[in-house]
Amino acid sequence: MTKKVVLVIEYDGSEYKGWQAQKYGVPSVQENLEKALAVIANHPVKVICAGRTDSGVHASAQVVHFETDVERNDRAWTLGVNTYLPSDIRVVAARYVADDFHARFSALSRRYRYVIYQSAFCPAILANGVTWTYKTLNVEKMKEAAAVFLGTHDFSSFRAIGCQANTPIRTILNFDVQQIGQYIVLDVRANAFLHHMIRNFAGVLMSIGAGEKPVSWAKVTLDAKDRTKGGITAPPTGLYFVDVQYPDSFNVPVCQLGPHFLPYVEESDYDVSS
Amino acid sequence: MTKKVVLVIEYDGSEYKGWQAQKYGVPSVQENLEKALAVIANHPVKVICAGRTDSGVHASAQVVHFETDVERNDRAWTLGVNTYLPSDIRVVAARYVADDFHARFSALSRRYRYVIYQSAFCPAILANGVTWTYKTLNVEKMKEAAAVFLGTHDFSSFRAIGCQANTPIRTILNFDVQQIGQYIVLDVRANAFLHHMIRNFAGVLMSIGAGEKPVSWAKVTLDAKDRTKGGITAPPTGLYFVDVQYPDSFNVPVCQLGPHFLPYVEESDYDVSS
Repeated sequence: MTKKVVLVIEYDGSEYKGWQAQKYGVPSVQENLEKALAVIANHPVKVICAGRTDSGVHASAQVVHFETDVERNDRAWTLGVNTYLPSDIRVVAARYVADDFHARFSALSRRYRYVIYQSAFCPAILANGVTWTYKTLNVEKMKEAAAVFLGTHDFSSFRAIGCQANTPIRTILNFDVQQIGQYIVLDVRANAFLHHMIRNFAGVLMSIGAGEKPVSWAKVTLDAKDRTKGGITAPPTGLYFVDVQYPDSFNVPVCQLGPHFLPYVEESDYDVSS
Repeated sequence: MTKKVVLVIEYDGSEYKGWQAQKYGVPSVQENLEKALAVIANHPVKVICAGRTDSGVHASAQVVHFETDVERNDRAWTLGVNTYLPSDIRVVAARYVADDFHARFSALSRRYRYVIYQSAFCPAILANGVTWTYKTLNVEKMKEAAAVFLGTHDFSSFRAIGCQANTPIRTILNFDVQQIGQYIVLDVRANAFLHHMIRNFAGVLMSIGAGEKPVSWAKVTLDAKDRTKGGITAPPTGLYFVDVQYPDSFNVPVCQLGPHFLPYVEESDYDVSS
């Protein structure tokens, strides 16, 4: 009898051309995961993820599901699979789940954190794990600007030209800008995201934080509904997929908010969904 | 006229067989740095470091000096050199320094931090930048055990078999065990270190923290003065060279305590040197 398994996956995306399996020889997280799962399942496995990440983007808690006929315990789907994965991809939780669960379509919201490291010199440590700027950023201005994005809007100005979504309308449920240790962290939760959306948010907010643009530019950009009126697309290095919310009834494993090098900080109380 | 330059270097040691330049084809931090400096100096450069690090060990603030006949500004010795370095090595400070300065012999003390990440599963993020354990560690027991190492002792039990130091006597000036965010961090300052000394401390303290050995085992091991009576040598992945103290008169650049993903935490007040 076919059963569904849900996994939570952590990965350092530096060495991968994104989540999605591509043509032969192009390294992807999905291909590595499917190969490792196939060894444990003893049959080919196709996984569906909650949100595909781009080249160089990381995840502390990507969620995937797959179907299998075999019975294995949770240790096999975690520790067992991990022995067949490269060291920059790890299964961190596994559980059998109801047949009607779908990693993508059952998701109520996704959450990303974008980690900016402000320093005179580009870091050697976590060089591919943060977004470096030598500019001094004003966090208060960035917070004020980010508030403009909350709620339901047409985000055409923040959507990559090649984005394949049916609509540019998305609902931002939470958008915090936090100073955490030596980092400035953008923490964004939405029902779903457009292609490059968070990196385009980061491009605008970093320009505002650096004083190159006024706070009001966030609303001007949003209202333009035109990508060519937006800012730069900030690098993928600082971007982490950190959480997916599902209906409680599915009992999907919940992991501590990552990436693990950031201390846990409560998201702000403002939440348009509540 | 020959002048001396002092540099502070940050590196992720994951891809290097240690600091020291070796035979052709063996990647080292030193060789990469010397090649990059030679481009800017327009002559061959030999650097002397404060403390050679092993294969896989990192540094947030290694200190080196070299001699040169040329005049360059600090931007050339930092930003200029960085353009010729791989992304996992960075010069983060540079300054001309008095002729009698010597990165190794002028050093009064060295400081390392050893970062332990405790989690059910091996991390994919910073996989080579922390030391993972699935065991629950008792920080209080580790602190109590670490206090035994403070002061001047014969550290033969913590010295690698191949260590080339003239004497096993070293003075530990500070040894903190701190819970910092999701990590347990050993923070050790000494006049100098023996080969593998901190990783051997970590091996003993992790066994004590996990409850496999009693707190008293730290003193038993120290008193044995015999490496074969010690614990395991913990992995290099969690080890960071973070600071060197010099006489103030040399005016060596002082950097914020790293690695940058750890929040700054004051070392304990206890200090046998004061």
